[in-house]
Amino acid sequence: MKQYKIGLVGIGAVGTEIIKILRQRKFTASEIRVLATCERDEEIAGETFHVQGISPEAFDGLDIVLFAGTEGSKGASVQYGWEAVKRGCVVVDNGDDFRMDERVPLVIPEINGDALENHQGFIANPNCSTIITLMGIAPLHKAVPIRHMTAVTFQSVSGSGRGAINELEQQVRDYAAGKELQAKVYPYPIAFNVLPQIGGPKPEMPGFTSEEAKMTFESRKILDTPELKVACTCVRVPVFYAHSVAVHASFEEPLSPERARAILDAADGVKVVDDLASAQYPMPLFTEGKDDVEVGRIRIDPSIENGLALWCCGDNIRKGAAQNAVQIAEELIKRELV
Amino acid sequence: MKQYKIGLVGIGAVGTEIIKILRQRKFTASEIRVLATCERDEEIAGETFHVQGISPEAFDGLDIVLFAGTEGSKGASVQYGWEAVKRGCVVVDNGDDFRMDERVPLVIPEINGDALENHQGFIANPNCSTIITLMGIAPLHKAVPIRHMTAVTFQSVSGSGRGAINELEQQVRDYAAGKELQAKVYPYPIAFNVLPQIGGPKPEMPGFTSEEAKMTFESRKILDTPELKVACTCVRVPVFYAHSVAVHASFEEPLSPERARAILDAADGVKVVDDLASAQYPMPLFTEGKDDVEVGRIRIDPSIENGLALWCCGDNIRKGAAQNAVQIAEELIKRELV
Repeated sequence: MKQYKIGLVGIGAVGTEIIKILRQRKFTASEIRVLATCERDEEIAGETFHVQGISPEAFDGLDIVLFAGTEGSKGASVQYGWEAVKRGCVVVDNGDDFRMDERVPLVIPEINGDALENHQGFIANPNCSTIITLMGIAPLHKAVPIRHMTAVTFQSVSGSGRGAINELEQQVRDYAAGKELQAKVYPYPIAFNVLPQIGGPKPEMPGFTSEEAKMTFESRKILDTPELKVACTCVRVPVFYAHSVAVHASFEEPLSPERARAILDAADGVKVVDDLASAQYPMPLFTEGKDDVEVGRIRIDPSIENGLALWCCGDNIRKGAAQNAVQIAEELIKRELV
Repeated sequence: MKQYKIGLVGIGAVGTEIIKILRQRKFTASEIRVLATCERDEEIAGETFHVQGISPEAFDGLDIVLFAGTEGSKGASVQYGWEAVKRGCVVVDNGDDFRMDERVPLVIPEINGDALENHQGFIANPNCSTIITLMGIAPLHKAVPIRHMTAVTFQSVSGSGRGAINELEQQVRDYAAGKELQAKVYPYPIAFNVLPQIGGPKPEMPGFTSEEAKMTFESRKILDTPELKVACTCVRVPVFYAHSVAVHASFEEPLSPERARAILDAADGVKVVDDLASAQYPMPLFTEGKDDVEVGRIRIDPSIENGLALWCCGDNIRKGAAQNAVQIAEELIKRELV
C-alpha cells in the first residue's frame, strides 16, 4: 500500500487531535511533518515531533497537508494554502477562509464525498456545528428532500480552543474556592452561564453572527441545495467537549420518526440513541471522544408541514474538525485523487 | 388601604422567593400564613414564621392563597386547592395540575390580566419557560398576530428545586477536587453537560416531553390563539438561575427588528438588551434576580415568511414562578376581584 507524506499546520486543540486520529485510524503515512510558527521539539499526543518553522519550501514533497486553523481568526491557509497547492500538495483546510470559495469543495465524506472529484488541490473542512447538524439531516434529505430547518446550537468551549477550555476550568475552580469568576477568552463568564453569540456580526445576514451564517451557507453548499431555507441561533454553553443541536426541519413529504430512525441507523457515521421513556438520548458528556454523531429525540414536529424534530450531538474537535479532515484525506486516497 | 390575609402553601425554592417578593413589593398583607406538611417554626428569607400544618380549616379566613407546588409532582393544590376556594379564598396555583382546566384562568398579568375577570376562585400560574417566552412574544403578537413559533429552551437547574441546585454545586466541587460526578436528581450529571429532557414523555404529543407540551398548550390558552402552531425542544443546562429561550417566530405581516424593539421597549416587564456589535444581549448569569424578562438578538428570520428571531431570558424562580404569582395577587386586588 502506498505510504503518503502528510503535513500538519498548527498544533492547537484540533492539530493535536489530528495526530491522535491519524494514529488511531492507522493512517498509512510515511511521514508526518508538523509545521508551526517556529522550529522546536514538541510532544504531541504522546509522541515527540520535530516541529518545523512554516515557509513555502516546508511544503515541498508533501502529498496532503492538513491546515488546523483556529476558527474565527484567519488561518495559516490564507498565507500558505495555495502556495502548498502550487508545490504539489492537496490541502485540507479546517479554517473558514475558503469554505465558500467556488474553487474549493466543502466536504463531509459520508455526505458529499463526490464533491472531491475534480478538486483543484484545495478542500475545505466545514464548520463544526454544520457538520454535526448535517450528519443527522443529510441522510434524511437523501430520502426526502429537505425544505427548511431551524437549528439552535449548544456549543462547547473547546470550539474556542485551549484557552477557553482552561477558562471554564479555572472559573469552576474559582467558584468552588469562593472566588470571583474572571473572563478573558469570552466577554463574560461561561461557567453557570450561556452566551448567545459565537463569532462576530455578519453583515450579509443582518443581526446574525458569523457562526449562524455558516450554518446557512455551508449547509446549502454541502447538500447542494442553494435555495435551502435555514435559520440558526448559536449559543455557547458551559460544556467542555461536544456540540449539541436542536433541529426542527420540514421536508417535501412526510417522514415518520420510525422511517427517520431506520434511515439514520443505516447511515455511516451516525448512531441513533432515542428512547425518551428510558431517558436515552444523545448528550455531550457521553458523545465526547466518539467518532459517530449521535441523533435522538426524533419526533414529528406537528407545527409545520412534514415536520420532524431531532437532537444531534457530536464531538466538535473530532467529527466536527480533526476526524472529518482526516476522513477527507482518506477519501482522497481511496478515490485516487492525490 | 385594605390589608389582605395571604396564605402560602409550600416553602421550597418558589415559596421562599414568594416571601421575599411580597416583602420587596411591600404587599399590603395583614397576615402571611405559611402552611406546610407539619407545624414548626422556620426561618424563611430572614424572617421567622410559625409554619402551620396544612388542613382544610387552616385556610379559613384567608383572602388569597398562593400554592407554591413543585413542578412535575402533584402539587398540594390537588388536595387542598378547591377546598380553599370553598372556604372563601382565591387560589393562585404555581403547580401544573389545573393550568389547562377550563374553569381556571392561566395568567401572566402583563399579557392577559383580563382573564382574571369572572374567575371562579382558582387561578393558575403558567410554566416558567412559557412565561419567559411569552413575555417576549405577546407584545409583538398584540401588534401583529403570531402564526408559528419554534422555541428551544436553555433551562436552569433551579427549575428542578433546591436538590438540583445542590447537585450542580456538588458536581462542580467534586470536579474541582478531581472526584467522579454523582447524579441523583437528574439521571446523568448536569455539570459540563446538557440534558435534552425536561419532564416525562407526554402521550398527547408523541415524542415530546411534558415541559415541551406545556409551551404549546399554555401559549395557546394565554394568547387566546387555539390554533397557534408551536414546536419546542426543552433542554436543561448547567446554569443555577434564569432560563433562556431561542425563539424563531413568524407573524401575519412583516415585523421589522426596529419596530419589534420599540414595541418591546414599551412593554411592561420587558427590557430590551440588544446590541450584538457591543456584545449586549440577555444572559442568565445577569438576568438572575431581576424582575424584567430581557429580550435581545432581535433579527429578521429570513428562512420563513414574516419571520423574526429573538432570545429571551428571565429569572425562572422570580418572573417564571414566584413573582408572577404575586403579580396575579396584586392584579386581583387592583381589579377588586378578591
